[in-house]
Amino acid sequence: MADVSQICRRAREAAGEVATLPSEVKDRALLAMADALEASARNLCDANVEDVERARADGTSTTLIDRLTLTDKRIASMAAGLRSVAAQPDPVGEVVQGWKRPNGLLIEQVRVPLGVVAVIYEARPNVTADVSGLCLKSGNAVVLRGSSTALESNKAIVEVLRDAATNAGVPTAAIQLIEDSGRDSATALMQAKGYVDLLVPRGGQALIRSIEDNATVPFIIDGDGNCHVYVDRSADPKMATDIVLNAKTSRPSVCNAAETLLVHAELAEKWLPGALAALSDKGVEIRGDDRVRQVWPEARPATDEDWGTEYLDLILAVKVVDSLDDAIDHVNEWGTSNADAIVTTDVGAARRFTTEVDSGSIFVNSSTRFSDGGEFGYGAEIGISTQKLHARGPMGLRELTTTKYVVWGEGQVRE
Amino acid sequence: MADVSQICRRAREAAGEVATLPSEVKDRALLAMADALEASARNLCDANVEDVERARADGTSTTLIDRLTLTDKRIASMAAGLRSVAAQPDPVGEVVQGWKRPNGLLIEQVRVPLGVVAVIYEARPNVTADVSGLCLKSGNAVVLRGSSTALESNKAIVEVLRDAATNAGVPTAAIQLIEDSGRDSATALMQAKGYVDLLVPRGGQALIRSIEDNATVPFIIDGDGNCHVYVDRSADPKMATDIVLNAKTSRPSVCNAAETLLVHAELAEKWLPGALAALSDKGVEIRGDDRVRQVWPEARPATDEDWGTEYLDLILAVKVVDSLDDAIDHVNEWGTSNADAIVTTDVGAARRFTTEVDSGSIFVNSSTRFSDGGEFGYGAEIGISTQKLHARGPMGLRELTTTKYVVWGEGQVRE
Repeated sequence: MADVSQICRRAREAAGEVATLPSEVKDRALLAMADALEASARNLCDANVEDVERARADGTSTTLIDRLTLTDKRIASMAAGLRSVAAQPDPVGEVVQGWKRPNGLLIEQVRVPLGVVAVIYEARPNVTADVSGLCLKSGNAVVLRGSSTALESNKAIVEVLRDAATNAGVPTAAIQLIEDSGRDSATALMQAKGYVDLLVPRGGQALIRSIEDNATVPFIIDGDGNCHVYVDRSADPKMATDIVLNAKTSRPSVCNAAETLLVHAELAEKWLPGALAALSDKGVEIRGDDRVRQVWPEARPATDEDWGTEYLDLILAVKVVDSLDDAIDHVNEWGTSNADAIVTTDVGAARRFTTEVDSGSIFVNSSTRFSDGGEFGYGAEIGISTQKLHARGPMGLRELTTTKYVVWGEGQVRE
Repeated sequence: MADVSQICRRAREAAGEVATLPSEVKDRALLAMADALEASARNLCDANVEDVERARADGTSTTLIDRLTLTDKRIASMAAGLRSVAAQPDPVGEVVQGWKRPNGLLIEQVRVPLGVVAVIYEARPNVTADVSGLCLKSGNAVVLRGSSTALESNKAIVEVLRDAATNAGVPTAAIQLIEDSGRDSATALMQAKGYVDLLVPRGGQALIRSIEDNATVPFIIDGDGNCHVYVDRSADPKMATDIVLNAKTSRPSVCNAAETLLVHAELAEKWLPGALAALSDKGVEIRGDDRVRQVWPEARPATDEDWGTEYLDLILAVKVVDSLDDAIDHVNEWGTSNADAIVTTDVGAARRFTTEVDSGSIFVNSSTRFSDGGEFGYGAEIGISTQKLHARGPMGLRELTTTKYVVWGEGQVRE
């Protein structure tokens, strides 16, 4: 894959310059990129139409067509994301911590860019702009490898972004797109050891498995979301219903949607039927354990498979638990450590749930749907890490950096 | 490997309890462990004698025998390490950052233990105590897999540590040793996916390659140290000589020893010969480029191989550079991003070197030998990361943690 290795080499060469760009150059570039996207909306939509028509001819599903389609509103939203990233503080140069040793050495841990960040993603053209903006702001060169389905859209977007960035003083190779979207180009990128400092896959199980099997470059997994809402005995009933409805139905196909509802036994009769009725009204299929089926007979029986499934659909597994302990145990046994919520008025229960549940994001009296870089205020999102090393949960600018120690002495040597 | 998987399962089960141990329990345990090591010094030395005699009979090198040997002084030093770890602030529960969103959500990023940490290491019994102490303090269960050479010593140390820890209220499975030191047990540990949250290999190239090839659990590489000292045109000559001598000769076999000296051309005649004479007096073999050999004819000619070699011996590659830029380029081309130093009186040169050299630790007017967890004040050291993700440079307690987001709402749902 000569093309991929050339692109990676150019990214590596540009990385040093990108890393030391002044904040004002990066921010000026980001704002220019935002303006340029809006000014080029017509061209971008024209390019996108080619992709959409090809996808339609290929019989692509309506959901995927919807994700692929660019509109003026979506372009405005991409531009808004870039402006929001520009408004974030520059992570590069942040002194994370610093201290003085007894021998007089001054030690500073300073935030620095990773170098070259690569992202493999599916047919969502907005990712092209989001990722480019986050990587530039964090001082990294980026190598984008989108899906063939969105190729014309991505080419058009990258051209607009690069022109604007280059005019603002950013090296051309800071933002590059791999246009070859065959499987080999993805594999070549996963194996560009020494050239790629971080690879973020944004895709389904097949992509993640391929990365785990083939990647020789460092990567962060943006994996499953088998999210839980636990409604504690002390929960405010109205709030509990609102949160469960939102977590399940506001966008069932995404990783921060709830898949399992756990209900304290004391609420099984007085709250659960009403909540399940509200969910059913929204078209949600209920799968419950025996105690759920006692109060909601039309529920399909839930099996262990249900506790372990990320439906990504209007289906909810429901279980009655006898205690907070049982709820915590269930989440830790079946969850994917992505996002889980408790609804409670009991501060002790909230404290135990947030401490003992081993998840990347834990929500008290709020919806799991907030597990999202944008909702966290990161301007845009590079992904949601479901691993524990380097980053966990929604990833923003800091997660695209590493640190170095800078140690200031006046002649100290070690005994 | 039934044994390894059993040990890992027990560690996983204990991890939840270890994670929530109060600081005072952990600190009391660490102090008790330190006392117990000193009180058991006789037994530990007896067990160690078995290892040492077997190693001698096997024809093990003097250096390795030295590392393996326990003395009262070394046991006292292990105890001091545990006490120093006890004195560190508890990283668990630290709120790394927190903020309020416009919708009223309060977001906190909280430091939490990783869970189960595994360490594969060579015949240095002190690592057994250092790693156990760091893992306990950071709320992790630890699985130790030492070398067969140190088996009796490690068994004796772990028994002492566990008894003391258990009496102080720590679960027994918080500290476990894999006694089977065959290759298969290492491989089984590398592949204990779902049970091991972090694997740290402390060993040579063969171990690192085996981890890279076989590991399915997350790991951090503690790799090479091809460290540089750059003596800038403005350097204080006496300080430069002291630092170069210390970085090269104080312990040549370790990863933070200097391997290459870069000297600004203006110092080639007036400083370099004296410095090389001092190095030669200490038994250092000099390999130099043409300009070095002009002022120090007995130097062997240096080749590209020399610039890329971590000698771990009393050999130093020396190069004359025309500028700070050339020095930075050389370090970034040939270095291993471990530790590099500049000697200078010019604050601008120091700023550029620290900014542009892409290393884990950069020393200004101080020896690369300070790249060490103990010297950084971390009490002990789990290793020195030569990678960029999760941790970089000397690793202490924080590097044995991850974070979770805890989000406090009052009924917020996402639009």
